[in-house]
Amino acid sequence: MAGYPPPGSGYPYGAPPNPYGAPPNPYGAPPNPYGAAPSPSAPYDPAGEKPPKEGKGQGGYGSGGGYYQHQTPPPPPTGAYGSPFAALVPSAFPPGTDPSVVACFQAADCDGSGFIDDKELQKVLSSYNQSFSIRTVHLLMYLFTNTNIRKIGPKEFTSVFYSLQNWRAIFERFDRDRSGKIDASELREALLSLGFAVSPVVLDLLVSKFDKSGGKNKAIEYDNFIECCLTVKGLTEKFKEKDTMYTGSASFTYESFMLTVLPFLVA
Amino acid sequence: MAGYPPPGSGYPYGAPPNPYGAPPNPYGAPPNPYGAAPSPSAPYDPAGEKPPKEGKGQGGYGSGGGYYQHQTPPPPPTGAYGSPFAALVPSAFPPGTDPSVVACFQAADCDGSGFIDDKELQKVLSSYNQSFSIRTVHLLMYLFTNTNIRKIGPKEFTSVFYSLQNWRAIFERFDRDRSGKIDASELREALLSLGFAVSPVVLDLLVSKFDKSGGKNKAIEYDNFIECCLTVKGLTEKFKEKDTMYTGSASFTYESFMLTVLPFLVA
Repeated sequence: MAGYPPPGSGYPYGAPPNPYGAPPNPYGAPPNPYGAAPSPSAPYDPAGEKPPKEGKGQGGYGSGGGYYQHQTPPPPPTGAYGSPFAALVPSAFPPGTDPSVVACFQAADCDGSGFIDDKELQKVLSSYNQSFSIRTVHLLMYLFTNTNIRKIGPKEFTSVFYSLQNWRAIFERFDRDRSGKIDASELREALLSLGFAVSPVVLDLLVSKFDKSGGKNKAIEYDNFIECCLTVKGLTEKFKEKDTMYTGSASFTYESFMLTVLPFLVA
Repeated sequence: MAGYPPPGSGYPYGAPPNPYGAPPNPYGAPPNPYGAAPSPSAPYDPAGEKPPKEGKGQGGYGSGGGYYQHQTPPPPPTGAYGSPFAALVPSAFPPGTDPSVVACFQAADCDGSGFIDDKELQKVLSSYNQSFSIRTVHLLMYLFTNTNIRKIGPKEFTSVFYSLQNWRAIFERFDRDRSGKIDASELREALLSLGFAVSPVVLDLLVSKFDKSGGKNKAIEYDNFIECCLTVKGLTEKFKEKDTMYTGSASFTYESFMLTVLPFLVA
């Protein structure tokens, strides 16, 4: 571990302050190597949005932020990692879903199939939030369905919608000067509030990768912030699936490594 | 490993035939879990290109194809994984470099700094090969320098140049119907000839990710083939760095996992 700041040197690994007052680890497991761990009983809701009250799904990790992991468990795996091409299970809107979300989905689902594809999702999100690249949309679809088929149903759409509202609120909270961009230290705080404590080296890498100016601005705009959050959240969750003992280390076979990483690469 | 074809079921893991006649494992280590292992003494050269005769660098793995790993060892790491922002060491053209490669570099290096940046590399490669996205260029620069600074010198440029010639020849060899695209089975053969045996599931994922039609054509064009090769080669090499015992499994800390994967994500 040469070259890494040792624990205790002011580095946020371990147990950073949890701004939501939730217990840092509700499962009695060893100290959380991933940093802040929001409790499943207190999902992030800084903007006062109303997440649908649904079953808790598999939100056993208690970390990762966003609503959907407590609402939308991925389809049951068919193999060691599930088939990346598994079919999406038809779904309905969770009870209590805001009618505007339903209307929004139905407007996008022209043929009434009950699913919308990548281009339809891109179009409909653009009217509610900001424009997203098709790459970001693909990453959203992958992470909200856990498959590579590029369609989502009402349930996933609702989760995407509320998560984006939540992330938008977080972005606006940390974009204090209203520049439309957040810098490295603001990104660090934003990720912490989502339950992810990343090291300074990882933070620098994220900023350099997601900065549209190619590293000149050292700042990230909203759409890339969303892609950055999706990436960190997705990779951390995949890593945790392998780190069953919660040690901060995980073992991968070559096959599982490739199947874990490739879906994030190009979309 | 449920859901994976067992060894011996016609699956190419293990020791597929080596089309170059090199011993499958020149180091006496356990059977190569990555598949075909070209010998360092017989670098791939199906088109009869002339790679510069240089030191062998750290090509100890004997796998991975392409010339550069025997010519351009990455700068010495400064920490467990090296600093992703390490400065590039100034370099010169290897003895015997084709004068047209030198002229090409010098034309691109307008200010005579001895380095060319991403946009200059993109421009100069377009005239010799085919157009590459800036993303592919960034991935090339990352893998040929092992840093995130987006500049390369004469040495790296020469390696990029010859590797692209090699990969172009491989692409043309497997694009038997001259359609400008290769399908899944041709990609499998092409990757095998580069020393990478990927499973059917990984192969499907690669085709779906690198197919410009979003999976409709189930085929990959030349520029995306290059990005696909860079991705498989880069990820496999990073994985092997952690799989020091050559077992086919590797352990990552959360930090090393993020630092390994993030450079491949967006470029």
